[in-house]
Amino acid sequence: MIGDSPTRPAFSMSQLLIGPPLETLALAHQAVSRVIGLAVFASDALSSTAYATEEILLILALAGAGAFHLSLPIALAIASLLVIVTVSYRQTIYAYPNGGGAYIVARDNLGEVAAVTAGAALLMDYILTVAVSISSGVAQITSAFPALHPYSVEFAVGVILIMTIVNLRGVKESGTIFAVPTYFFLAMMFITLGIGVFRAITGTLGTVTGVETLAETLEPITLFLILRAFSSGCTALTGIEAISNGITAFKPPRSHNAAVTLTWMSGILITLFVGITILSRRIGAIPIHNETVISQLARTIYGPGSILYIMTMAGTALILLMAANTSYADFPRLAALQARDGFLPRQLGFRGSRLVFSWGILALASLASLLVIFSNAEVSVLIPLYAVGVFMSFTLSQAGMAVRMWREGHLKPGEIEKGLETDLSFDPRWRHKMIISGFGALCTGIVMVVFAVTKFVTGAWIIVILLPTLVYTFFRIHKHYKAVATSLSLKGKNQMVAAHPMQTIILVDNVHAGTLEMVDVAKSLGHPWRAIHIGINPDKEEHVKEQWAEYIGEGEVEIIDSPYRHLTYPLREFIEDLLAQNPDSYVHVIMGHLAMDTFMGQVLHQNSVLLFNVALTNMDRVVVTIVPYQIHRAPHNQYIATGNFARQPVKPADAAKAAE
Amino acid sequence: MIGDSPTRPAFSMSQLLIGPPLETLALAHQAVSRVIGLAVFASDALSSTAYATEEILLILALAGAGAFHLSLPIALAIASLLVIVTVSYRQTIYAYPNGGGAYIVARDNLGEVAAVTAGAALLMDYILTVAVSISSGVAQITSAFPALHPYSVEFAVGVILIMTIVNLRGVKESGTIFAVPTYFFLAMMFITLGIGVFRAITGTLGTVTGVETLAETLEPITLFLILRAFSSGCTALTGIEAISNGITAFKPPRSHNAAVTLTWMSGILITLFVGITILSRRIGAIPIHNETVISQLARTIYGPGSILYIMTMAGTALILLMAANTSYADFPRLAALQARDGFLPRQLGFRGSRLVFSWGILALASLASLLVIFSNAEVSVLIPLYAVGVFMSFTLSQAGMAVRMWREGHLKPGEIEKGLETDLSFDPRWRHKMIISGFGALCTGIVMVVFAVTKFVTGAWIIVILLPTLVYTFFRIHKHYKAVATSLSLKGKNQMVAAHPMQTIILVDNVHAGTLEMVDVAKSLGHPWRAIHIGINPDKEEHVKEQWAEYIGEGEVEIIDSPYRHLTYPLREFIEDLLAQNPDSYVHVIMGHLAMDTFMGQVLHQNSVLLFNVALTNMDRVVVTIVPYQIHRAPHNQYIATGNFARQPVKPADAAKAAE
Repeated sequence: MIGDSPTRPAFSMSQLLIGPPLETLALAHQAVSRVIGLAVFASDALSSTAYATEEILLILALAGAGAFHLSLPIALAIASLLVIVTVSYRQTIYAYPNGGGAYIVARDNLGEVAAVTAGAALLMDYILTVAVSISSGVAQITSAFPALHPYSVEFAVGVILIMTIVNLRGVKESGTIFAVPTYFFLAMMFITLGIGVFRAITGTLGTVTGVETLAETLEPITLFLILRAFSSGCTALTGIEAISNGITAFKPPRSHNAAVTLTWMSGILITLFVGITILSRRIGAIPIHNETVISQLARTIYGPGSILYIMTMAGTALILLMAANTSYADFPRLAALQARDGFLPRQLGFRGSRLVFSWGILALASLASLLVIFSNAEVSVLIPLYAVGVFMSFTLSQAGMAVRMWREGHLKPGEIEKGLETDLSFDPRWRHKMIISGFGALCTGIVMVVFAVTKFVTGAWIIVILLPTLVYTFFRIHKHYKAVATSLSLKGKNQMVAAHPMQTIILVDNVHAGTLEMVDVAKSLGHPWRAIHIGINPDKEEHVKEQWAEYIGEGEVEIIDSPYRHLTYPLREFIEDLLAQNPDSYVHVIMGHLAMDTFMGQVLHQNSVLLFNVALTNMDRVVVTIVPYQIHRAPHNQYIATGNFARQPVKPADAAKAAE
Repeated sequence: MIGDSPTRPAFSMSQLLIGPPLETLALAHQAVSRVIGLAVFASDALSSTAYATEEILLILALAGAGAFHLSLPIALAIASLLVIVTVSYRQTIYAYPNGGGAYIVARDNLGEVAAVTAGAALLMDYILTVAVSISSGVAQITSAFPALHPYSVEFAVGVILIMTIVNLRGVKESGTIFAVPTYFFLAMMFITLGIGVFRAITGTLGTVTGVETLAETLEPITLFLILRAFSSGCTALTGIEAISNGITAFKPPRSHNAAVTLTWMSGILITLFVGITILSRRIGAIPIHNETVISQLARTIYGPGSILYIMTMAGTALILLMAANTSYADFPRLAALQARDGFLPRQLGFRGSRLVFSWGILALASLASLLVIFSNAEVSVLIPLYAVGVFMSFTLSQAGMAVRMWREGHLKPGEIEKGLETDLSFDPRWRHKMIISGFGALCTGIVMVVFAVTKFVTGAWIIVILLPTLVYTFFRIHKHYKAVATSLSLKGKNQMVAAHPMQTIILVDNVHAGTLEMVDVAKSLGHPWRAIHIGINPDKEEHVKEQWAEYIGEGEVEIIDSPYRHLTYPLREFIEDLLAQNPDSYVHVIMGHLAMDTFMGQVLHQNSVLLFNVALTNMDRVVVTIVPYQIHRAPHNQYIATGNFARQPVKPADAAKAAE
């Protein structure tokens, strides 16, 4: 026997990267205050201020610099939408004190199709959040250090890689860790805006230098263009739903604290977004390829290269990385939820050794990396893919709440007293609440359609195709699991376990020490057996027969001809004959495997066990037993075989006699 | 039971691509005449005229157009080298009538290290032959159709892909197929050179138009530069050894016919190479990025776009593709030879269903594709990697011949009569022959060193590092196989097969129809068993215990705790305890596997059999039996499980009784 194999595994490469395993009991909650809660859940929403204004200007720039004055009205329209959504989500927070993500709210109130649609939309958006936030974060850094610009993609993928490793380790006490960058960002942004406003009022704020100027008019300003700019800016709303997902993390009274935090967050978000938009217009910021609007703003306010400029850019980059990091928690958790409901591969629902959903983290990281590579780490390429999903989930979540309110209002007197499985309770203000949620759903639904239409050709078409495809796939998966569960179910079909005859065959490739082991196992099992060799090479067939007679000396090797040098087809045919001869029997195939210590050593051998296993696994009544024979590598590249048992030497005469 | 599984497999995707399998007996030889033999074996050597002159000019161009007059003396020096090698290889052909590739000659006369070095060098060069020939072939085509130039890499990789599929099918009657393009190329080249010479003599041959001119002097002409140009031109010699490899393909008297063919080939090669060099100089051809020298020559002689121009380019492209194709025969054959001697992974020595060495073909195709991609399909990037290996194998092969002659001359009288295992026979002209081979070895050895030194910085360093690395790796592989063979050998250790006690455990994840199947198998085997569940989730543990009592009703499930949610470590620990308790026993692990019809269906399940197999395969005295349970997909995405046997219904009361 080699190696130690304790319950807690020995040190390995994966442990070096992701740390030692954690006990299941360690999965405990840690309640956070409002201040920490804001830091934990707001980074996604607040960080979108780093690119939302720029994305509005980027569309308006198509009509020339003269269209930039539209940025403020557009930003104000988006701010109004934000107020509506905030009011609506406060209701959700009170209705779902255990966490009311769009998937859960839709599942409870609108049924499976809506739930799966919301789930698929959110999963897509979590992936895009990682890609967009990290691309934008990298763009902030390369704005400050232009020499890094050519390496944006490598940089962004590197950040995703590090973030993946950190998250596979699992983040403990994340609250306090989150607070520092979030509040640092907020501090820097408020200082920047404050000084900016002060300098603007005192007339000392200049305009941005060193960027190409834009012609006053290029294209006519159309309604379509304004709607495009509006929908680009709506990315500011992404992440607003995070608090409604994480209510359980707050200190009691949970719902109240969560709702207050949501209100704070929206207030801060609106202030920053509108403030950045106004000042960007004031300094004449131009959306260009190699410097972000935030950088132009901070550079104009502080002067290039100043400490405050660098700190502002660092804060912005940090909050964007934090925002990406929230998806590392949300995506695997939602995927696990859907996997447990049978809509995604079951593996996504298993917690890894560090208590995190490792498969989900890896899936998120790979898909986000692909997006970054294909978009060349450019935010504006990703924006048309973004936000359709977010607004889809907003709409479904609020529509679900509206339906819920309607049902609350229509509870029959008896139901009110009983307390129902759906947790409804009559609320006299249901009509008022239903209108709020319904209006929110209507607004976000309209924005979603506007978004899909105005961004259709630049990328939203991908989502319009992908979303239904995903929903269809999720239901296919669900159907598969349900059907398999039905066919495996024993309910109502009391059946008896019973013994059956066994036809045992030993698969012989060559006669060596490993072959002895197979025969040992066959003898130990105690059923009669036949030794079989697949004949590919006529010379070898003879050799195997002779060796068998010399060294095994019991029975003889039967040859199955394989004129086409296939290993598996002739074996299958042979087994099918055996099964047909005795329809009540199992066929038991014993095969040997040379087990090497190292992967490279193993690769040098044929490993036909894999091939045979694949070939026989879809045959009824055929069971396969693998008999490994260990070959260990000793120092100085010598190899030694460990015979499993001390064997009795046998006189050649005896062996010869037995062979007869 | 599903599907048919005849000895000859049913139709599949791989068959559509590579054709139905061929019987082993179909592996027969077909003797070719000298005319066909020239076509089959000369394409590699002759095709190098398509780029050898250009590569000389490319180096001379560094010194300016004034250095181009050196191309003729350099070409003549290369031609002299070619004569020496030809004379030397004629001797090899007579000494090795069964085929004397460098690997075999070196193995016979210089030992394993030289043989493995020659083998590694040749394998590298076969890969480079594919990359260089196809890149050059594509360059000829894009010279004629410049619109294709941006797609050179895709084009080249596409050609490799097609060639790979064709070769995986196996090429039958290749001789005649080869004759057409080879002789078409020769005809076109001789016509081109003939007309070119005629027009030059009559003074009607102009100079090439439409290419940038080059300054007369750029760098000084140094000896180093001349040697660099010389070694670039030496690529003309690649492929000259092909005939000595393929002597058995010729009609008797084989050696004589092969030797005559070699002489013809060298004569033609020298004529073409020197002719192209002279005329290129005459028309003032300039090595440029997007048009080959052959194209400039043919265009100047025939006029652009004329039929003869297109035909010349087509012929050149064809012979280059043929040259690449010869590597598809040579690489897998040599790899198989080395694999059988235990220097390469054994799998390279197996013939696939179409009688070709499929693994070798796939290895060649992937490596050549990578080279094409990394070199951007540019011949001049690949040239510094090329030819070091060829000249290494030339040198070793001829040195081997010289050693052989020396041993022939020093045979003792008794040995002459006996006839030796090494096939030597006293030859009175041994001294003369030894000098020829030795001189050849010396010349090619010097060229190899010149090549390695002058091309070192531009790429030959890769080969200088890679070749010893490969040789070392090949010996490591050899050592591994030898050591494994020793530890598996039964020679001189007569040992007896014997039965041992079996401790059987059934690995239970859940209780369902597949679980019944496992218990059936355990009962059929007739040994006492214990059912084991790895406890990851406390709720599930209870559920499994209850279900077991209800539906199986024999024995009970034992829980192995796994606080870290590992599946395999606790199991290993449990098995090690069992093994320690009874050191004379096997532990027999029975595990179930849900077998789905489709790959996608299978992916949706945990497939923990794979995980457990990997975890248990390196344990002594542990055998694993896999009990598959078939779940078939019926129309309309329904799934049905096929119970292996018609089961007897059992009254719940009985089950309850049995559970007690």
